[in-house]
Amino acid sequence: MALIERLKRPGDIKDFSYEELPALCSEIRELLIDTLSIKGGHLSSNLGAVELTVALHRVFSPPKDKLIFDVGHQSYTHKILTGRREDLATLRDKGGLSGFPKRSESDCDAFDSGHASNSLSAGLGMATARDLMKEDYKVISVIGDGALTGGLAYEAMNNAGSLKTNFIIVLNDNGMSISENVGGLSRQLASIRTSNGYTNLKAQVQSSLERIPVYGEKLVAQIRKTKSGIKQLVIPGMIFEQMGIMYLGPVDGSNIKQMENVLKNAARYKGCVLVHVITKKGKGYLPAERHPSRFHGADPFDRETGLPLSTKDPSYTDIFSTVIRKLGQRDEKVCCITAAMMDGTGLKRFRNLFPERFFDVGIAEEHAVTFAAGLALSGMKPVVCIYSSFLQRSYDEILMDVCMQDLHVVFAIDRAGVVGHDGPTHHGLFDLSYLSSMPNMIVLSPKNKWELSDMLKYALSETHPVAVRYPRGCACTLFKEKRQEIVRGRSEVIEDTRKGKGGVVILALGRMVENAYHALSLLKDDKIGALLVNARFVKPIDTDLLDKVSDASLIVTVEDNVVTNGFGSKVGEYLLSTGYKGDFLRLGFPDEFIPQGDCNELYDDHSLSPKGIYQAIREKVSADGKGKA
Amino acid sequence: MALIERLKRPGDIKDFSYEELPALCSEIRELLIDTLSIKGGHLSSNLGAVELTVALHRVFSPPKDKLIFDVGHQSYTHKILTGRREDLATLRDKGGLSGFPKRSESDCDAFDSGHASNSLSAGLGMATARDLMKEDYKVISVIGDGALTGGLAYEAMNNAGSLKTNFIIVLNDNGMSISENVGGLSRQLASIRTSNGYTNLKAQVQSSLERIPVYGEKLVAQIRKTKSGIKQLVIPGMIFEQMGIMYLGPVDGSNIKQMENVLKNAARYKGCVLVHVITKKGKGYLPAERHPSRFHGADPFDRETGLPLSTKDPSYTDIFSTVIRKLGQRDEKVCCITAAMMDGTGLKRFRNLFPERFFDVGIAEEHAVTFAAGLALSGMKPVVCIYSSFLQRSYDEILMDVCMQDLHVVFAIDRAGVVGHDGPTHHGLFDLSYLSSMPNMIVLSPKNKWELSDMLKYALSETHPVAVRYPRGCACTLFKEKRQEIVRGRSEVIEDTRKGKGGVVILALGRMVENAYHALSLLKDDKIGALLVNARFVKPIDTDLLDKVSDASLIVTVEDNVVTNGFGSKVGEYLLSTGYKGDFLRLGFPDEFIPQGDCNELYDDHSLSPKGIYQAIREKVSADGKGKA
Repeated sequence: MALIERLKRPGDIKDFSYEELPALCSEIRELLIDTLSIKGGHLSSNLGAVELTVALHRVFSPPKDKLIFDVGHQSYTHKILTGRREDLATLRDKGGLSGFPKRSESDCDAFDSGHASNSLSAGLGMATARDLMKEDYKVISVIGDGALTGGLAYEAMNNAGSLKTNFIIVLNDNGMSISENVGGLSRQLASIRTSNGYTNLKAQVQSSLERIPVYGEKLVAQIRKTKSGIKQLVIPGMIFEQMGIMYLGPVDGSNIKQMENVLKNAARYKGCVLVHVITKKGKGYLPAERHPSRFHGADPFDRETGLPLSTKDPSYTDIFSTVIRKLGQRDEKVCCITAAMMDGTGLKRFRNLFPERFFDVGIAEEHAVTFAAGLALSGMKPVVCIYSSFLQRSYDEILMDVCMQDLHVVFAIDRAGVVGHDGPTHHGLFDLSYLSSMPNMIVLSPKNKWELSDMLKYALSETHPVAVRYPRGCACTLFKEKRQEIVRGRSEVIEDTRKGKGGVVILALGRMVENAYHALSLLKDDKIGALLVNARFVKPIDTDLLDKVSDASLIVTVEDNVVTNGFGSKVGEYLLSTGYKGDFLRLGFPDEFIPQGDCNELYDDHSLSPKGIYQAIREKVSADGKGKA
Repeated sequence: MALIERLKRPGDIKDFSYEELPALCSEIRELLIDTLSIKGGHLSSNLGAVELTVALHRVFSPPKDKLIFDVGHQSYTHKILTGRREDLATLRDKGGLSGFPKRSESDCDAFDSGHASNSLSAGLGMATARDLMKEDYKVISVIGDGALTGGLAYEAMNNAGSLKTNFIIVLNDNGMSISENVGGLSRQLASIRTSNGYTNLKAQVQSSLERIPVYGEKLVAQIRKTKSGIKQLVIPGMIFEQMGIMYLGPVDGSNIKQMENVLKNAARYKGCVLVHVITKKGKGYLPAERHPSRFHGADPFDRETGLPLSTKDPSYTDIFSTVIRKLGQRDEKVCCITAAMMDGTGLKRFRNLFPERFFDVGIAEEHAVTFAAGLALSGMKPVVCIYSSFLQRSYDEILMDVCMQDLHVVFAIDRAGVVGHDGPTHHGLFDLSYLSSMPNMIVLSPKNKWELSDMLKYALSETHPVAVRYPRGCACTLFKEKRQEIVRGRSEVIEDTRKGKGGVVILALGRMVENAYHALSLLKDDKIGALLVNARFVKPIDTDLLDKVSDASLIVTVEDNVVTNGFGSKVGEYLLSTGYKGDFLRLGFPDEFIPQGDCNELYDDHSLSPKGIYQAIREKVSADGKGKA
């Protein structure tokens, strides 16, 4: 029997001998590589955290003890150790195992994570509640060095340093976030990694000092006088100690016994303690060790070569990558800012060509936006490239620092709409809602690859804040011949299958234009004509067009955003204000969190696939194209 | 002639001799105290920063050099020094001088501030743009120690440490934010303040080390080996140095000459440098020195005694203060979290009674929310008390950490709607828009003081996230007899002056119920009857009520939020989906940033005063109460 088969319940890992653990870890790695080569997923981070997760589960006892994984995409081994080994085959499928911790999946998952840097705040809250309720368990937050650059993590550390609660932070330090890590803190951690280890150094320095007869005493006295004590002389981890957090480390993340010892020490400590563990992203799978970034969130790949199984058509990210490079060549005021998403947003080529105009600020979406505001104020043309769901972190900065001052900052928002298997924390389903209520903001979305290019050029020619949002996945190549100039607030007619005016009018946005176009064919088969409009702008909406179609029997909006406060809301509000008397139908995602699944499945579930749009319209109209009501 | 009268243009301050400066600073203080005793405003922070601002303007030259004030409420002396002394009489009036830096007011104001912790990001962006555009000026961000607890500031410092641009951070350290400062960083700063000064200590330590023949060398070598260098031995400011930021200080904030010298040094430094200045909040005015928090944002006061000029009726904050204390007594799971707004949100009495259940996390709104999520997950009933406009910082945390997990966190949102003289950065005009598109969130607002109490009790009895938002200022005491139980999604009829059904229906929310009620009287004078409904809930809206009034000729919504995506939008969307054929009118603030001014003036300007509501309805209906159209 393979060792891994003995992992049936939480705690089973404690029955393994130290001699068995290396072989078990290899089996876990094989399972991860096998599974992810078929299903895709976050390979690098999971391979790097196998031994660390094993050590955590041997020292602590979930579900009693609370293990919180920051971001959570490194929790696959945790799932294997807590009774979900066999479910791994359903990983990231609709209805299957989540690629992130999910409380609904197991009571060993303490917090539903997905966005970076929040595990310390959540863990500190839990530890505090435990104390108030006089309960007795451990709370451990596992955070990467990348996530530590997020301001939220710092706010929590600052708070942890003054609360007296027992709380364990495990810093899983692999020297990178999604891309290579950046910033002053990261340099600091790098210098610790190359040091000879805390305990030794501390002993050496202290004894050196004590053995110096006159000067040593004087030195110690001088430093004591500053009320910071001798520990200030110990270099590693001082940034944490200065915030009031006990630092233990660095610990070798491949040495389970050493990690167990330090974690046991940490568990005994009264107060907040940070255990610094050095791990290696992609460990045990050569292609991932060499290209950890490529295997951050990987599509299915060939197990032998590590190469993707299918070569894909260009994505919107690819198109953006090409266009932004050209725009950078054309105008040397164009600069790009991203928050640890250089590869994911397609900025690598821009960075290679214009390194001085490229800024990766680390996992720090808020700073990215206000930094861009400063660039814009002083004459540059900043393009902020952040995934839709992560840009949520910058709500206040977009509103107050960019929109209030009406600054010309361009937001290139990738991963808008549903993203598929990463699920609810990564879907970009709220951007239209929150961006559209910001004064001065212009919001638009392209129907195909050429329109993304045109919209980016338009955005750079604007004078206001502009957000161009586009989805994950292959760029649409339909409608090549439809390439009217982008004019603020103007939509574009795609096709009119009506006889005369009136009847059904479909206003589709971005990714949904393609689906609505196919729905148009299905309607035509039923002899129902309709006008299909590519809306282009969510803000300002095309009120001229709406005035022209006010005699419609049914106006339908289609968007890949929650319907609440989205594109359809804007259209509906305008129609109501003008006394429109026809029927109105808003298609979009409902007011709930949308689970993981293939994007087309998700469209299907919410009347956003071609057939779904067709059926939703069909329910409203009879064959003559007039409203049923 | 008074010295202050020589301050006519930016740069005039450079012509003063050191001997004249103390007298000038006294005159500035007198002017500040005189003006603010009449106008109200941020007294404590401005009194503390007089000498610092003078030193900044003597070393640097705005508008060429860019001075960015974090938060910005400490910029009054800056305004006096840049040609706006005489305008100070209009401070915070509608159309008058802003209480914050405003680019539209003077080109010496480099950035429109208002929210904490963003000055480093903005300044770093400006400094970077300057380099890229090969221009030559200085960029200086002035930030308080309170604002330094915000994650955004940390993200910027982390980035500044790795960029090579010349950028000056002035840490205006008075040991407090709005309330007393908290957290590990603050303790660290406190220990620096009591140290003997950087320069001396550094010299002593270094020479001590160098003079130690054998051990000294060994010690230095050991520490060098860690690649952090000798500077690690210097205690003050190491937290900054560790992020790659040069630290200078602490400097006495009352000694202009010393500050000038250090600032000149900083200006010569290549890279990012932080100058740590120790100031005293409220300096020079005894009542403010003694009660800096009371004079943080002060209403007009008696110059002699420092006491408020008028005793006011209880505000919503006062009501909240009383109710939350009682609720805390009744249920020991109730705990309160605030972000440096203990006094402002009325939590002082709760803190005094239940210190172990009170958490001031510092200026760290994001952490406050996720910390509350952790508390809720582990069995407590957290109430997050943050002003509406500052809660914007927590958008992602509310959505992902609270709503996605459907946690029972209560948000007590003070300062919703317009706040008056603090203007656009402090108005709470977006909360209904961004909260209402969050799945699982319940949003409501009380019409009067009793309803705030009832709503808080209801909120704590819920099982979902609940946001209760209420405005600044006196709590409404009308409608005492109207006290129906709060039921999720149910509104309340206030008065029906119609004859029969149909006609005009007014749905007013929170603060606007009172104004709509007075409008009802005015309509009655014109023989126009109407049904007035207290909406109570923005999410979920009362669809039963809307179904009942579907025969109305005109439905009017009234809210003190931007109309975009607000309460009226929700009502309109529902009406459109149900085929409502009457007229519809949404009253609220327009899709723009609303300037400072008396709240009633602002209501007047946007058809939200009793008369404004009356007139807006009057335009829609003829005397018989039927729609004109």
